Amino acid sequence: MDKFKSRTEIGIFALGGLGEVGKNMYCIDYLEQLFIVDAGILFPDEHLLGVDYVIQDLSYLIENQHKIMGLFITHGHEDHIGGIPFLLKKVKIPKIYASGVTVDLIENKLEEYPELLNTTQIVEFKSHFIFKFKDVEVSFVRVNHSIPDSFGIVFKTSLGTIIHTGDFKIDLTPVGPGAEYDKLARLGSEGVLCLLADSTNALREGFTDSEKKIGQSIKELFSKIEQRIIVATFASNMFRVQQIIEACIETNRKVAIFGRSMEKTIEVGQQVGYIKAPKGTIIDSEEINNYKPNELCLLCTGSQGEPLAALSRVANGSHRIIKLIPSDTIIFSSSPIPGNQEGVNRTINLLFKKGANVITHSPIADTHTTGHASQGELKLMLTLLKPKYFMPIHGEYRMQRVHADLAIETGVKPENTFVCENGDVLAINEHGARIAGHITAGDVYIDGTGIGDISTNIIGERKLLSDFGMFSIIVTIDTKNKTIPIEPQIVSRGFIYMKDSEMLTKEFIMVAKKYLMDEMEKVKQVNLLSLKRGLSEELSKVILEKTDRRPMIIPVFMDVNPQ
Amino acid sequence: MDKFKSRTEIGIFALGGLGEVGKNMYCIDYLEQLFIVDAGILFPDEHLLGVDYVIQDLSYLIENQHKIMGLFITHGHEDHIGGIPFLLKKVKIPKIYASGVTVDLIENKLEEYPELLNTTQIVEFKSHFIFKFKDVEVSFVRVNHSIPDSFGIVFKTSLGTIIHTGDFKIDLTPVGPGAEYDKLARLGSEGVLCLLADSTNALREGFTDSEKKIGQSIKELFSKIEQRIIVATFASNMFRVQQIIEACIETNRKVAIFGRSMEKTIEVGQQVGYIKAPKGTIIDSEEINNYKPNELCLLCTGSQGEPLAALSRVANGSHRIIKLIPSDTIIFSSSPIPGNQEGVNRTINLLFKKGANVITHSPIADTHTTGHASQGELKLMLTLLKPKYFMPIHGEYRMQRVHADLAIETGVKPENTFVCENGDVLAINEHGARIAGHITAGDVYIDGTGIGDISTNIIGERKLLSDFGMFSIIVTIDTKNKTIPIEPQIVSRGFIYMKDSEMLTKEFIMVAKKYLMDEMEKVKQVNLLSLKRGLSEELSKVILEKTDRRPMIIPVFMDVNPQ
Repeated sequence: MDKFKSRTEIGIFALGGLGEVGKNMYCIDYLEQLFIVDAGILFPDEHLLGVDYVIQDLSYLIENQHKIMGLFITHGHEDHIGGIPFLLKKVKIPKIYASGVTVDLIENKLEEYPELLNTTQIVEFKSHFIFKFKDVEVSFVRVNHSIPDSFGIVFKTSLGTIIHTGDFKIDLTPVGPGAEYDKLARLGSEGVLCLLADSTNALREGFTDSEKKIGQSIKELFSKIEQRIIVATFASNMFRVQQIIEACIETNRKVAIFGRSMEKTIEVGQQVGYIKAPKGTIIDSEEINNYKPNELCLLCTGSQGEPLAALSRVANGSHRIIKLIPSDTIIFSSSPIPGNQEGVNRTINLLFKKGANVITHSPIADTHTTGHASQGELKLMLTLLKPKYFMPIHGEYRMQRVHADLAIETGVKPENTFVCENGDVLAINEHGARIAGHITAGDVYIDGTGIGDISTNIIGERKLLSDFGMFSIIVTIDTKNKTIPIEPQIVSRGFIYMKDSEMLTKEFIMVAKKYLMDEMEKVKQVNLLSLKRGLSEELSKVILEKTDRRPMIIPVFMDVNPQ
Repeated sequence: MDKFKSRTEIGIFALGGLGEVGKNMYCIDYLEQLFIVDAGILFPDEHLLGVDYVIQDLSYLIENQHKIMGLFITHGHEDHIGGIPFLLKKVKIPKIYASGVTVDLIENKLEEYPELLNTTQIVEFKSHFIFKFKDVEVSFVRVNHSIPDSFGIVFKTSLGTIIHTGDFKIDLTPVGPGAEYDKLARLGSEGVLCLLADSTNALREGFTDSEKKIGQSIKELFSKIEQRIIVATFASNMFRVQQIIEACIETNRKVAIFGRSMEKTIEVGQQVGYIKAPKGTIIDSEEINNYKPNELCLLCTGSQGEPLAALSRVANGSHRIIKLIPSDTIIFSSSPIPGNQEGVNRTINLLFKKGANVITHSPIADTHTTGHASQGELKLMLTLLKPKYFMPIHGEYRMQRVHADLAIETGVKPENTFVCENGDVLAINEHGARIAGHITAGDVYIDGTGIGDISTNIIGERKLLSDFGMFSIIVTIDTKNKTIPIEPQIVSRGFIYMKDSEMLTKEFIMVAKKYLMDEMEKVKQVNLLSLKRGLSEELSKVILEKTDRRPMIIPVFMDVNPQ
């Protein structure tokens, strides 16, 4: 495969975001200028024991640091901005370009990392701004999404225009500003060389519901409920929060806010104007007992069943302020993200058990809509932009594949669609486009703020420990005289209670001593390493036989008298 | 609360199955005769590290062994029969009553436990059988479900009739025998004292699709596919398997079977007559290469993304016989069970990546239907049986609650519906019904064939180990002379690579030595236990500070010269 020619071609690739939903990071590499789009995290699934976040392998950026022109952020969700601190720790990013609430969210995040202060500069862009670099001009298109200030990013080059949609849907009756259709249409008629577009909902037919429709349906629900209302939603969706506040105003309810991220949303939202509430609408959370139940709406975090969020604490009875009463109605203005279904179910069952009424999103109670375009909107975007080349991004492989098929339906040539993996380089020159090599891409596990990254080896060890626990035998040995001067000790955790199994403990120690004495007798020179290995094997055999379990076996030798 | 009077009242309670989907076990206790319905397991969620199954706390049965008349099995799914071996190990069960394929499934299961041979007797019942006990008469009603030979169980007592529906749906065009509506109607008109009914799909409106409809839709799919077909479904659903075979016959395809449980289904199904295939339809799996792709249908296990099942191995390229080709079409004739969604997604993406076409159950490709009654059928059952008292079973709390509401809609008095938890005793006498106390009920964790049950403590330890790994320090100490004669050793697993962190290791050892020496100096008599505890605290503080992690800290002391 001929490699990408960085001096004459445009290289487009992802360090994260392809074949997955999360850790988005896309790069446009042209004439020794590197433009990065987004730096997100991925929340690990349950197999990655003890891992807090997954981020991109940043080797390419570290090696090509001198080329980096800047980091452009499409919007403020964690899978697009959550990786910024980890990126800044390893790579010098001259400027971060972001807009509106995204700037606040990034600034809040960086406040937790004082060591990163002054390592970069945040440049706030507006929708009509144009940034001119040596050979590339960067501009923006406002789109609709489930957080305000979401943008597509436009890279004009001498070879043609490359557009990255960001996460988007097309909402013809949006809450907040609409998408800039005129700009999209103009870009389309001027010609688009390559489009990178959001594939999250490529498997969904039709059109995504408008945010306004959900607002209407929430208002109708509110008008029918006669007692206290508790609503849980995504704190980042300021449009939803604003609509819930409007429903409260219409039904004469005060709003009290619970959960740190929800409080933050209200604060930032009011500053930038996305959240508007007449004075007196939002009350202090401590004051809720001064109102009757039918005068109240409690707005909470915890729509995903997160164990420590406000609603989960209400459900399990440990919330400091909110005590559930059977006449309460809880509305989930959300859908469970894959992987969270069981946690959400647990919360719902607890709420039901306390006698409360629970309303979740369903065909009869339209309490939520997604922020991502369904097939109808994806085809509309493709039709407006008419790209020559198409690269579906932001989604699992199946979503990318189906998105590519949609592009072909709208007229993109099949050979011009590129369903890539992280690291695949799509190289474009004036003659055509092709996959030209592969750069380093992969998963890096972050655990705590970490002194280092967690390797798959460490996770493998945790998996072993979590399945059957550990069994350690501490042997004080005298290899010179070939004796075991002190009785070996056994320490186990997560295995079986050795205290209840004195017989077993004695047996294991006997087996170990016999094995060690026999082995030492056989040889002239004792090799501690092979003795250790042999003892592990011997013990695991006996332990499996006696307990049907396979704990991780850790022999520790103290040689008091080395040969 | 006045207690259940076992000499005059009927006691009804569950040892498992309420507030959960799994480990079903219900008891009818009357005049010193105890009838058990089902003995299932529950598959643990990911929080129960290393636990293979969850079963019931059997204390009540152990204490009341003398009263047990028999175990009645409604049908052969694991959540109804999987617990039988564990039950037989602890409790003497005189007879197990089961029907048709259920008998085969139980016998297969018990073959793996030779020690249980001859501990009980399996009595095969037919739908019209009646078993007369001293004060109770037990009979059966055939129902529809996603496995053949599913029954409701009828207990006639002098106080009235108690009916347990088993898992059911009402399928007016079933594959296999229909439900016995006449019997249900007759029981209803004779009078039903108490109904226990399946709540699994109580949240679903309308009526569950007929199995025949799925067969039709599978046939239509097959007739449109021109290359090789791979179908994955639940092995236990013989009706589905038979319909897939019929689709093959109609479209001139041979069927090859993959996966041990699927082979077993075919074998048992053909013996009892639920599976019928003309000679030559089912071919040996090794022969598939003798046929053209359009002459083949491969029937596999793995519809739930189980890592070791046939389809998963096909997807990851490790299947011994089936090598995926891009023209293959894979049909999932199944829905992911909650908790399995991510595994199924992984499999689908792998299949897509290899270029295969994947069809899952959706509104446009009706490849699956549930075996449980939706609201329409639940109301129909309630209307046919007109029970005086109603106890929704087999479901999470929310499902039970909604099912109780449906009962009220059909005319059951609100005060006569009992939404219970495992262990709650519903006591019925001629004057009325009430919750009368609570017997021991709970979860018992099974890990391997086990020498003992796993306690929550052990799982707690595994959780700790899985989050941050373990850090052990082995200290050889001389408490008499208050010295540490040998340098302490550090052993860690699943934490950080100590080899890469020599500085840290040295630091931790230094901290430990300093702490121990200081503490020993302070006292006249060294207390090893408090020294250990103090060292743990000291080290966890320093480790957290240096690494931001909280491994399980395990100090091991070897006192070479005790005071």
